[in-house]
Amino acid sequence: MAQTTPNHTQTVACWAAHDPSGKITPHIIKRRENGVDDVTIKILYCGICHTDLHHVRDDWGITMYPVVPGHEITGMVTKVGSNVKNFKIGDKVGVGCLAASCLKCEFCKSSQENYCDKLQFVYNGIFWDGSITYGGYSEMLVADHRFVVHLPENLSMAAAAPLLCAGITVFTPLKDNNLIESPGKKDRSSRSRGTWARGNQIWEGIWSSCNSHQHISLKGKRGQRGTRTLDFILDTVAAKHSLGPILELLKVNGTLSLVGAPDQPLELPAFPLIFGKRTVKGSIIGGMKETQEMMDLCGKYNITCNIEVVKPDQINEALERLARNDVRYRFVIDIAGDSSNL
Amino acid sequence: MAQTTPNHTQTVACWAAHDPSGKITPHIIKRRENGVDDVTIKILYCGICHTDLHHVRDDWGITMYPVVPGHEITGMVTKVGSNVKNFKIGDKVGVGCLAASCLKCEFCKSSQENYCDKLQFVYNGIFWDGSITYGGYSEMLVADHRFVVHLPENLSMAAAAPLLCAGITVFTPLKDNNLIESPGKKDRSSRSRGTWARGNQIWEGIWSSCNSHQHISLKGKRGQRGTRTLDFILDTVAAKHSLGPILELLKVNGTLSLVGAPDQPLELPAFPLIFGKRTVKGSIIGGMKETQEMMDLCGKYNITCNIEVVKPDQINEALERLARNDVRYRFVIDIAGDSSNL
Repeated sequence: MAQTTPNHTQTVACWAAHDPSGKITPHIIKRRENGVDDVTIKILYCGICHTDLHHVRDDWGITMYPVVPGHEITGMVTKVGSNVKNFKIGDKVGVGCLAASCLKCEFCKSSQENYCDKLQFVYNGIFWDGSITYGGYSEMLVADHRFVVHLPENLSMAAAAPLLCAGITVFTPLKDNNLIESPGKKDRSSRSRGTWARGNQIWEGIWSSCNSHQHISLKGKRGQRGTRTLDFILDTVAAKHSLGPILELLKVNGTLSLVGAPDQPLELPAFPLIFGKRTVKGSIIGGMKETQEMMDLCGKYNITCNIEVVKPDQINEALERLARNDVRYRFVIDIAGDSSNL
Repeated sequence: MAQTTPNHTQTVACWAAHDPSGKITPHIIKRRENGVDDVTIKILYCGICHTDLHHVRDDWGITMYPVVPGHEITGMVTKVGSNVKNFKIGDKVGVGCLAASCLKCEFCKSSQENYCDKLQFVYNGIFWDGSITYGGYSEMLVADHRFVVHLPENLSMAAAAPLLCAGITVFTPLKDNNLIESPGKKDRSSRSRGTWARGNQIWEGIWSSCNSHQHISLKGKRGQRGTRTLDFILDTVAAKHSLGPILELLKVNGTLSLVGAPDQPLELPAFPLIFGKRTVKGSIIGGMKETQEMMDLCGKYNITCNIEVVKPDQINEALERLARNDVRYRFVIDIAGDSSNL
């Protein structure tokens, strides 16, 4: 199904799945020449997200094979287009889920590109030139610079990779609910630092479930658990479950933020929702401005992910272990085999 | 299971169900003497709510038989306690779902008694004296004056009855979403009147489904229908359904307000929720201040419900017709047989 266009002349080694068995094998793709708005990135690391598993197995019925997964990409800039002012060769950068958006709608204008209805993803999407997008399980990426972020110098490029999807996915709903320090307010009183510390604590608290995708995180302002005790719950579970017992834990007016994407509908009993005036709100990744903000904050507080690094020839094993929840943290593929950036 | 207390000395004719067949028969109950905080009400009309059907048939497994349903009650005050300053004999009044709350918690203090966790309902509840509460399918009610509202003189007491549950149930989420004129701002500019008119239009628009309990109302600011076109949806459906197709109609950041109470969990697919950053929020009836505000607004704009009046000996037939959705509007029981207040 993949279309190539005349300027897709660059040959790139990658790892792709070819059918719903989901088996990954070495493969060769073509990528476009570096355009005026593009940067070319030598990929060093790529996280393995649960979404990759859904795609390689076509769980959602939308996979265009061959699929090259990977949307938690870190690497080095090797080329910049003439319109690109904010990146230079040698920069450490990250690319997440987004490859393109319309850049004109109300969401793009307010850097909520993730809600643009013309949004295209970094893999299994269709780029403006009609080509299928291929993700980070590959040695090189050509990306529109508007969908690239800078990586703080102090962060491990391996351990920072999952921030590009798992990180921003949990950061955004926490920020929307005022549980994260605002980036423009760094010189704040201890009270504000307390707010950040609390947000930080919660965020750290949810990392393990974010990484494993199998647990529900229940953290409130005072860490209590019990009926009507929590202000906020972040639900990262990627499998079908009932929201009933979870909603009961929320206070009146409390919010459950849903970021997982199970392929079967969740069960939503009406009673705990209506009797507690509770809210269930969806959220998907984040906009580019917010992704950079999160990355800068992670740099400031030296936050990265707990990871297990695998080689490209271990991708199948890693996906199988992910499927049976046999991973404590996040798998990250060492694409370039260059341990100096771990 | 009903407990009587020494001061439950008043004999009252009523209509009650005695087992899960749900069959209603004439019955006699005892009500308490009129206390210092009470008003005694001669009941004239009582709406038949879908909740009554659930209770008489014990659909939710919580019915205490004999059950006297009815929480859309209108009538005349015949007695007032010594602490009662805001009602006098002869006043036209209404009583809805609430019989008692703690009067001390944050919700009671902010007149959100409907979210007090000590809340007791007007029937099938347990009052402070330990007695089971009996509802409006009866000739007389003794009610704490803090759970009674005034009825505007211009409204039909029959057609106003459903406002006490169905009305406030849909009013509150519309107000929470800024679709209703604020009561303290009656002298507003034409722009504000426009807002009210829009809210009014929406509210009127949802009446038929509110009355029949079987349809989904889809009304937005401009009345469009289609993917990503609506700001707000009020879902009054009392049967199991999937929220997926409905959520798709909402804009990014749109809200689905859920006020129905099906006994089976709703289906909530994650994709339309997360991809649209959409909100599903529960709401149940309203607080007393808000109920009076709604009633006053209905008086001001002469809004009542489309109803079908039945006699007490037609209650079983009405409940059966309600069960099979054979009612265009709301059934209201003419308790006193006094057509002068229709």
